[in-house]
Amino acid sequence: MNSFRAINPQSGEEFGPEIQNLTQAQVSAIIEASNAPLLSPADRSALLSNIASAIDADRSTIVPLAMQESGLPEARINGELTRTVFQISTFAQLLATGSHIDAKIDHADANYGMGPRPDLRKMNQPLGTVAIFAASNFPLAFSTAGGDSASALAAGCSVVLKAHPSHPNTSRAVFEAIQKGIAASGQPKEIFSLVEGNDPQITHWLATHPKISAIGFTGSGAVGKLLMDLAAKREVPIPVFAEMGAINPVFVTSLAIAERNEALVKGAVDSALMGSGQFCTKPGLFVIPKSHADIFVAEVEKYLSTLSVGPLLNKGIADRYSTSISSLASLGSVKAIMGNPGVAGISATPTFFIADWATVESNAELLEEHFGPTTVIAIAEETQYEGVATALEGQLTATIQGTDKDSVEGLLAVLAEKAGRVIWNAFPTGVSVTAAMQHGGQWPSSSSHTTSVGTDALYRFMRPVSYQGMPQSLLPDALKDSNPLGLERLVNGVRTKQ
Amino acid sequence: MNSFRAINPQSGEEFGPEIQNLTQAQVSAIIEASNAPLLSPADRSALLSNIASAIDADRSTIVPLAMQESGLPEARINGELTRTVFQISTFAQLLATGSHIDAKIDHADANYGMGPRPDLRKMNQPLGTVAIFAASNFPLAFSTAGGDSASALAAGCSVVLKAHPSHPNTSRAVFEAIQKGIAASGQPKEIFSLVEGNDPQITHWLATHPKISAIGFTGSGAVGKLLMDLAAKREVPIPVFAEMGAINPVFVTSLAIAERNEALVKGAVDSALMGSGQFCTKPGLFVIPKSHADIFVAEVEKYLSTLSVGPLLNKGIADRYSTSISSLASLGSVKAIMGNPGVAGISATPTFFIADWATVESNAELLEEHFGPTTVIAIAEETQYEGVATALEGQLTATIQGTDKDSVEGLLAVLAEKAGRVIWNAFPTGVSVTAAMQHGGQWPSSSSHTTSVGTDALYRFMRPVSYQGMPQSLLPDALKDSNPLGLERLVNGVRTKQ
Repeated sequence: MNSFRAINPQSGEEFGPEIQNLTQAQVSAIIEASNAPLLSPADRSALLSNIASAIDADRSTIVPLAMQESGLPEARINGELTRTVFQISTFAQLLATGSHIDAKIDHADANYGMGPRPDLRKMNQPLGTVAIFAASNFPLAFSTAGGDSASALAAGCSVVLKAHPSHPNTSRAVFEAIQKGIAASGQPKEIFSLVEGNDPQITHWLATHPKISAIGFTGSGAVGKLLMDLAAKREVPIPVFAEMGAINPVFVTSLAIAERNEALVKGAVDSALMGSGQFCTKPGLFVIPKSHADIFVAEVEKYLSTLSVGPLLNKGIADRYSTSISSLASLGSVKAIMGNPGVAGISATPTFFIADWATVESNAELLEEHFGPTTVIAIAEETQYEGVATALEGQLTATIQGTDKDSVEGLLAVLAEKAGRVIWNAFPTGVSVTAAMQHGGQWPSSSSHTTSVGTDALYRFMRPVSYQGMPQSLLPDALKDSNPLGLERLVNGVRTKQ
Repeated sequence: MNSFRAINPQSGEEFGPEIQNLTQAQVSAIIEASNAPLLSPADRSALLSNIASAIDADRSTIVPLAMQESGLPEARINGELTRTVFQISTFAQLLATGSHIDAKIDHADANYGMGPRPDLRKMNQPLGTVAIFAASNFPLAFSTAGGDSASALAAGCSVVLKAHPSHPNTSRAVFEAIQKGIAASGQPKEIFSLVEGNDPQITHWLATHPKISAIGFTGSGAVGKLLMDLAAKREVPIPVFAEMGAINPVFVTSLAIAERNEALVKGAVDSALMGSGQFCTKPGLFVIPKSHADIFVAEVEKYLSTLSVGPLLNKGIADRYSTSISSLASLGSVKAIMGNPGVAGISATPTFFIADWATVESNAELLEEHFGPTTVIAIAEETQYEGVATALEGQLTATIQGTDKDSVEGLLAVLAEKAGRVIWNAFPTGVSVTAAMQHGGQWPSSSSHTTSVGTDALYRFMRPVSYQGMPQSLLPDALKDSNPLGLERLVNGVRTKQ
């Protein structure tokens, strides 16, 4: 199996060119050639803008390929391409301000409180060459030019991108667009490199190469943990920024059900089935009150009976989905309700499971993430909600569906300990790319407290360095007295452009 | 060996009360009782100010104990207490501004570029309860109330402090002062807890307790790596912020020697012998030019012959020093030059080793940190300096001693990749507590890219959380529209107090 071809999830058929698995020597050569030139913030910003423009310009090539390889509808893929371009452009705007450099200047002070202070100046610098592993479930937004790649490039790193074998031709097309953007900027093509293959060894070779200084990953807990393990055992350990999914609990109050049962159920089910249930932010656990469980579940049953979902992304996900569903259905005291089967290709039937919280709590499987159109509805007393929340593992998100008459302060406090993002009266799918977004943070949803979405994601790939007593001629521009980059800097504790 | 007593390094004699090793049940009970109440920035600032004042007020109790247990002179210990008080006060000032919360508000925007944006608000929150391991070599500044404890308290965490068995009575006295500060603030005493003992198992119990959410450590590479290993294998892995020392290379140019050989050598030797060579920032490697090696070494020999150092901190360090010195002295092509023996107690003789770079490079031992009054002088061609720097591991600091006629841009660029702090025409000992300080960053000197000194150290113990679509009544004060804390916040990308 030294090569493979793309599979169309709609038809289940192979198509496109043979993709060769790279050898260890080829992977090493790509990493060794990887090149992260030190660019000014303006040049780095221009590079990102050019990459964003080039991807947008190739929309008509990229979108049909991504649709063919993912089975996702045109509107979704077009939206994903827009998101991809937007997030690269957002980083380009941030870089233009230079605020990511976080320049701090403390002048020498003979009378400093703890004893004389030398001249100290500190700034963020890029880590070097990073390995990014593309996700299967967002063929554009979390793939070749996705959030991890964009934030690593924004940080000033060079990227070695492991393409996901679910969409190799989309990855090639996006890679070509990235290369056009790099060429338009007059920069070396080795700023961004593509590694192809479906051989699991490739992951090992990437994670253990001495030149790789950090890893970005979005995917399963099993692979995330493998990467952490490989990274920790290196001669020089490196950070792994792994986003490994979650069950994203949604706590529903009885007042919310009493107020808006139909709309609430529609929102909940739509969120759970969005993208055929293959989002890391899919609500995989609804906690509903015993007092109103019957009308909530009846409404879910009614709505679900009208729905089916598009094909799953690939055969591996479909096989695991099928195994999960059989296993969950065989548990005692668990009721399954179903939607309609998919029509063609790698299809799946939406299947929701309903059980008392006591049953859910005692079956670890019901509290695990299951990719695909399934979710668990747990019935509990509302007085138990804080206890339920406390029993959960770390999450990407946690949601409360309530009303302004609910007292949820205690529950919210527990959820803010468990999750990176807490949500009121909305659903967790849909992750806005913005400064105030936190996507990640608590184990096992993430390997670190950082975010993989939003502008703060770039700080994962930078490190601070202090310069002590340097003459102006040796200081980086960001730290010179003359402030040639026009940065806002923290000078002796005061923010200033002077 | 369920108990031990302090040892006076000046006399080598035991003194003071028996210190009992805590049992696992006792350690667990302390951790479980640990309590990090959610305080406003103003209250947390007041808590730190009160702790700082209480330590300063107990100066006359603490200083003699620390002198007795460390063998360090009064001026040094007094300076260390001043530094300890200063760094806690510096955090108190930072907390009063609330800038550490890093509040970001993005209002809902129906016309946002990638699709409608919900209201999102993000802030830093404390991690919870952290375990801090005190260092041996700074009985105050990196011990019970040292930088790690201060930054964890500043972050809003509760601290469980493992006292260093080299100075148990100093730790008790500082702990009592901390408790007075906590009491003066009307806060629960379980914000700060002391764990005593010299049983290595205690380290395991602390690192693996489920309630511990992060580890701060300053000490040896062996223990740092053990902590990382323990933390990674937990059911819920936690971050380890370990500062594990370095050899802090100093590159000396021929022009610098030609210009100021005597002063340069005095500065270099004083820095290497400061605190009897037991600083993590001790310059453990001088790289000098072949052309001027003779006059530099002759000057070192001359100056060293006039010097002796105070006792080492404890018998363990002294034994390891003695073993290291014998081993290094037995290497071929290495010349040893010595100062004068110490006068009493746990004494040591300053011993410097001189060899060609080729010899140093091929003997890993010469490139390792050796605690105590020893350093290595490596002779190289100046044209080799970039190559020498490239061959080194990650460092806390790296220094160039040169003149304005030297061309050191290439060397500096390599050193800024290797070290957290790069220094021009000064020496690495002396680590100022300020915003622009970076202490740590590159393996094996540190386990992460963070700093353990300076105000940025507190961010190690916080994590960001986003609040989506929350009603004002459910938002933390830091994120409310009315801005009751008067914070400067990033609102829709603009810094403002509105």
